[in-house]
Order: sequence, then structure tokens, then C-alpha cells
Amino acid sequence: MVMQLSVFLACSLDGYIADRDGRLDWLESAAATDEDYGFDAFLDTVDALAMGRGTYDHIAHLDPLPFGDRPVFVFTHRPPSPRPGVTFWSVSPRQARWRWDQMGLGRVYVDGGQLISAFLDESLIDDLTITVVPRLLGTGRPLFHPIGRSATLRLDAVQPFPSGLVNLTYSRV
Amino acid sequence: MVMQLSVFLACSLDGYIADRDGRLDWLESAAATDEDYGFDAFLDTVDALAMGRGTYDHIAHLDPLPFGDRPVFVFTHRPPSPRPGVTFWSVSPRQARWRWDQMGLGRVYVDGGQLISAFLDESLIDDLTITVVPRLLGTGRPLFHPIGRSATLRLDAVQPFPSGLVNLTYSRV
Repeated sequence: MVMQLSVFLACSLDGYIADRDGRLDWLESAAATDEDYGFDAFLDTVDALAMGRGTYDHIAHLDPLPFGDRPVFVFTHRPPSPRPGVTFWSVSPRQARWRWDQMGLGRVYVDGGQLISAFLDESLIDDLTITVVPRLLGTGRPLFHPIGRSATLRLDAVQPFPSGLVNLTYSRV
Repeated sequence: MVMQLSVFLACSLDGYIADRDGRLDWLESAAATDEDYGFDAFLDTVDALAMGRGTYDHIAHLDPLPFGDRPVFVFTHRPPSPRPGVTFWSVSPRQARWRWDQMGLGRVYVDGGQLISAFLDESLIDDLTITVVPRLLGTGRPLFHPIGRSATLRLDAVQPFPSGLVNLTYSRV
């Protein structure tokens, strides 16, 4: 089995995943409440989740975390108090991938703009589904941070939704 | 007749319209040579073109400019020697729109990341077609520069092409 690192994320047309205060109301107001934009089907294929500390802090108050019994890996240099099912670690993207492979994980969902960009900078992301939201935020927290590496992608699927959001799915060539 | 200011532009999935040297080879290598991605049909609906000085300098060596007899407006504070059919001016987006309206122009094509962002910052763009190219450039010249204004868009059309490029067409709500 070949390990797969995947991205599944919504962003505004101008490339922001949150406003500059980290808020998501613009996304919630744009999305239809009866549509999950393929997220549950995607999550069903995922063995574990990876996120940066900022993303974790946003959801840390949820108990349980909304990922079933999937292990969660939080990349941080300042680990908070331990939590069952959550690994706080300070490893490089390449080390992380190696450890996940050793653990027998098939597909890991990498979340958060900074962490995704760090993995992209090591060419470690295998596929991306970007939900393009029909908003221009003007400013905010970017999905893609500048990195030193370029990549050619293959377009695998395009799915527009009645609410005007569009899923674009790519894999690395 | 209501004036319409339009954007029609290709960018990488990570939001760049050119690499950091201003080069477009990544775009030319991604695009099919026998496909114009709707550009000619769009240009047929356009009465005039607007661009920043950087964009103009990229195409200034072309004689004639590839826009038929449409007038071209170049936004610059340091006008070069005069050229028939080209207006070099230093006006605000709002002033420009007012003058175009006075001239009886129906649809003006606004080109270039900085100029587009300046018009967006005044809520003066009516529709956008973004051709999303299946590349991650990592860094380069952004399509959307940070601005202080957000906008809600309506998705009007989605058109994927066999080469993996996707046209997303939006209008301002």
C-alpha cells in the first residue's frame, strides 16, 4: 500500500481559508447547510489527521474531536497537556511521513495553510481538493504560503454545487 | 447601457499570474495550443482594454497590439512616448470608469494583478473569468493583492478543458 497525503479545504476565490482574525463566518454564510461538499465521503477514506497548532487550537474545545477514532497529529513546538488520541510532536514533514508509513497509515489528511505549504515545499502532498467559495475576502489567512517549489498537477474532477461553491480535485503528476 | 468592467485571466492554483520574473512559460506549457480557453469570444464582447504599466511593457513590442482597433488605457505615472490608440493616464479607478462611461464604452477588460486589485478595492469589477491552471508555482506575481474590501460573487459558469485548465466565471452580487 502506498501512503497518500491529502488536502481537502475550502478557500475564497482570492485564496484565503479564514479572515485575518481566523474567523469562518463568510464560509458558513456561503455554504448550504444541507450540503457537506463531499467532506464526509472524503473523511471516510482517511486514516489519520495532521494539523498545525493554530488549527488544533480552533477545535480543541470540541470533545470528542469530530474525526471518529482517527488519530490526530498536531505539529507544534510547545505541546499542551496530553490528550488521548492526539499526538503533539515537532517533526519535519518528511519525518512525519516516514513515521506514518511505519504505523501503517494509508491516507493522512493534512490540514491548515501553513502545514499544507510546509508539506508542499517537500513535494509530499499527493492530492488536493479545493472548494472554491464565491467570495473575495480581500485579506486574511492564505491557503498557499510562498514556497520555493513548483508542481505540475493533474485535474481529476470538477464539481460545482448549487450554492456556487466548486470542488476542484487535483493529484500530483 | 450599463457599463461593465470585466476580468479574464489565467492563474495557477496557488493564485499566481506570472512567476517572480514575470515569465509565463509555465502557463504556455500547461495550455493546449489549439485551445484559446474562451479568450477570443470574450475579446469580441470587449470595447476597450485597461492595464497597468507592467502589463503594457510586456506587450509594448507587439505592433500592432493584439486587440484589433480597440482603445487601450495604460495606468501609469510615467507615460512613455505617445502611441496611437493607447492612452497613458494617471487616474483613479473611479475616475477611469466615469470617463469610459462618458466615452460610451460598454465593456472594458481590466488586466493585470495590481490594476485588477485596485478596481476590486473600489468594488468596480462586475465579472471575473479565472482560468485555473493545474500548477503550483510556489511563488510569483499574485492575481489578488491584499485589499481592504470583501465581495460576494455569484458563480455563473464552470468550464473544464481537456488540458486540465478550468474556467470559473463569476459576477458581483
